Amino acid sequence: MKPPQVPGAAKPFVWQDNRVYFVDQRELPLAEKWITCSDEKQVAAVIRDMVVRGAPAIGIAAALGMALAFHPEHPLWSQSGVNEELLHEHWQGSYKLLAESRPTAVNLFWALRRMEALWQGIDKKLESLELFAALLQEAFAIWQETIAADQAMARYGAPLLPPGGILTHCNTGALATGGLGTALGVIFQVGRQGDGVRVWVDETRPYLQGARLTAYELAQEGMDFRLISDNMAASAMSRGWVGSVIVGADRIAANGDTANKVGTLNLAILAQHYGIPFYVAAPLSTLDRRTPTGQEIPIEEREAQELTRVRGTAITADYPVWNPAFDITPHSLIRAIITEKGVIEKPTVQEIDRFLA
Amino acid sequence: MKPPQVPGAAKPFVWQDNRVYFVDQRELPLAEKWITCSDEKQVAAVIRDMVVRGAPAIGIAAALGMALAFHPEHPLWSQSGVNEELLHEHWQGSYKLLAESRPTAVNLFWALRRMEALWQGIDKKLESLELFAALLQEAFAIWQETIAADQAMARYGAPLLPPGGILTHCNTGALATGGLGTALGVIFQVGRQGDGVRVWVDETRPYLQGARLTAYELAQEGMDFRLISDNMAASAMSRGWVGSVIVGADRIAANGDTANKVGTLNLAILAQHYGIPFYVAAPLSTLDRRTPTGQEIPIEEREAQELTRVRGTAITADYPVWNPAFDITPHSLIRAIITEKGVIEKPTVQEIDRFLA
Repeated sequence: MKPPQVPGAAKPFVWQDNRVYFVDQRELPLAEKWITCSDEKQVAAVIRDMVVRGAPAIGIAAALGMALAFHPEHPLWSQSGVNEELLHEHWQGSYKLLAESRPTAVNLFWALRRMEALWQGIDKKLESLELFAALLQEAFAIWQETIAADQAMARYGAPLLPPGGILTHCNTGALATGGLGTALGVIFQVGRQGDGVRVWVDETRPYLQGARLTAYELAQEGMDFRLISDNMAASAMSRGWVGSVIVGADRIAANGDTANKVGTLNLAILAQHYGIPFYVAAPLSTLDRRTPTGQEIPIEEREAQELTRVRGTAITADYPVWNPAFDITPHSLIRAIITEKGVIEKPTVQEIDRFLA
Repeated sequence: MKPPQVPGAAKPFVWQDNRVYFVDQRELPLAEKWITCSDEKQVAAVIRDMVVRGAPAIGIAAALGMALAFHPEHPLWSQSGVNEELLHEHWQGSYKLLAESRPTAVNLFWALRRMEALWQGIDKKLESLELFAALLQEAFAIWQETIAADQAMARYGAPLLPPGGILTHCNTGALATGGLGTALGVIFQVGRQGDGVRVWVDETRPYLQGARLTAYELAQEGMDFRLISDNMAASAMSRGWVGSVIVGADRIAANGDTANKVGTLNLAILAQHYGIPFYVAAPLSTLDRRTPTGQEIPIEEREAQELTRVRGTAITADYPVWNPAFDITPHSLIRAIITEKGVIEKPTVQEIDRFLA
């Protein structure tokens, strides 16, 4: 069985010879280290330690982990008396291990539940190789669907963006999804159309996903870009260098309010000030219709040292810090949400309802 | 002769026993190293190497350097045949050395020209001690006037600020002026009035003056503050935590457009969006009436490594960077400019003319 063909230049993981090779995203772009995983425990560790990040990429990784848990060479099969009960016990243990590897990742649970649905229907009396193949096939299907969704978003999004530079925040590329990326996938699509666009990359403090990962992906893709610190966005816009802003989303409320990496709200307000359209690109799985507005989305506050240290180097003393991981952009500042099923223009609760109807 | 009494908790330099002791601002707050200067060459090195920064502080340092050049124990006096011509030659050499230590610093030239005016009128036949005393007196006068201007800005500014948290950018404190500070001086004044205000400190990428120096000064002063990355400002504002924004200025055009550390424009736009008043605190010497608008102010673009490295640690690869040092905030976004002579409300070319008339 062959893994899906990945359309992005950068890859968060590669499936080869019944192993997953993860590029260590903590080290990119200064080093390109690959970590090999041949069982579910190693995959859980790689998710927990943030070797791999990005909600869709984590989901695929977890699904691959569940398949690896039943690999024919897994110690599981060398136990004496392998029966249906033992297999189910092993399934549950592996599931728990992977579910706990990143407890707030929505896509992780979604992917695991989908594997669980397959497991419920599967004939446990299958030979190890057939069982493994069925699980792997489902993991590859999840992966393939992510790729297809990314490509659909890119096709819907690219024609929307007006001419001019494109500014983006955080990392929403192939490294985050295992496909083409969400917002960055749209940008790649614009680039591949050969319009010679320049991309403005917010470094994205404090964790620097823009400076490290988005810059890396754009360099791999061979696109023209400039790295800036987040506070230079208004300067670039005031000079007319930015024609559009496009970002991803961590969660979208029923009315279109969008939670995304902290700094997104700043950009949305600046874009409005300069009359620059502001787009969100995210798969429909990001839409949480049980949450009425952005006010009900809880914002994770992270440890102070993420801000006061950079790659282990202290940049200042241990002063009191406020370090929210996300912010909420009100739907009124969003020109359109780009999904794999089409575009929701000027999102409101009514527009989103109509789109989904 | 005693040096001026400095009202700030933090000090960029101390005069003692005919020497200047500079705190190394490159190392603050992780280390408090003091560098001793006993002649003009050492002072020039300290300015060049950015041990001391901040336009007013550099001006005072240069004036003290010119005085030290004529210290009675300076090698100058041990030469044979010290005459008026030799003294003048030594003056010119010292002047050039200090003027070239930071070639774009306006206050540096202003302070040196003021020392020059004294030199022109001085009796060169004075004993070394009398000559030194006359120069030192003038340097102390420059220092004392800076302190008085800072205190006047603080008195004018503090009553303007509405209740609520105060957000600031970069470092505009005692370390930058040798007095109380400009924008941070106003904040200290509010704090000393005992209103229990919380200060929001932008870390100020790429050089991190906020994270390093403003946080240090606020901690020394014992004020309540929270350090944030620059892109968290909108989040704090959206929660109602920010009642006002106050920043310094590097140059103010005739119409009130203000050049200041990059990131200031972002804050001004965000403040307008949330209806939060945005103030600039700067001495009148910052006002450049020969520059009609902000468009004519040149913006220094600095080297890429200032962004891609932090304290010598690479945070990403050597990607293409745009690194402007300043941005221009249009006067329409400024509620008032606070000067040592009073407040210019809603600055325009007319308002500024009227104020100066």
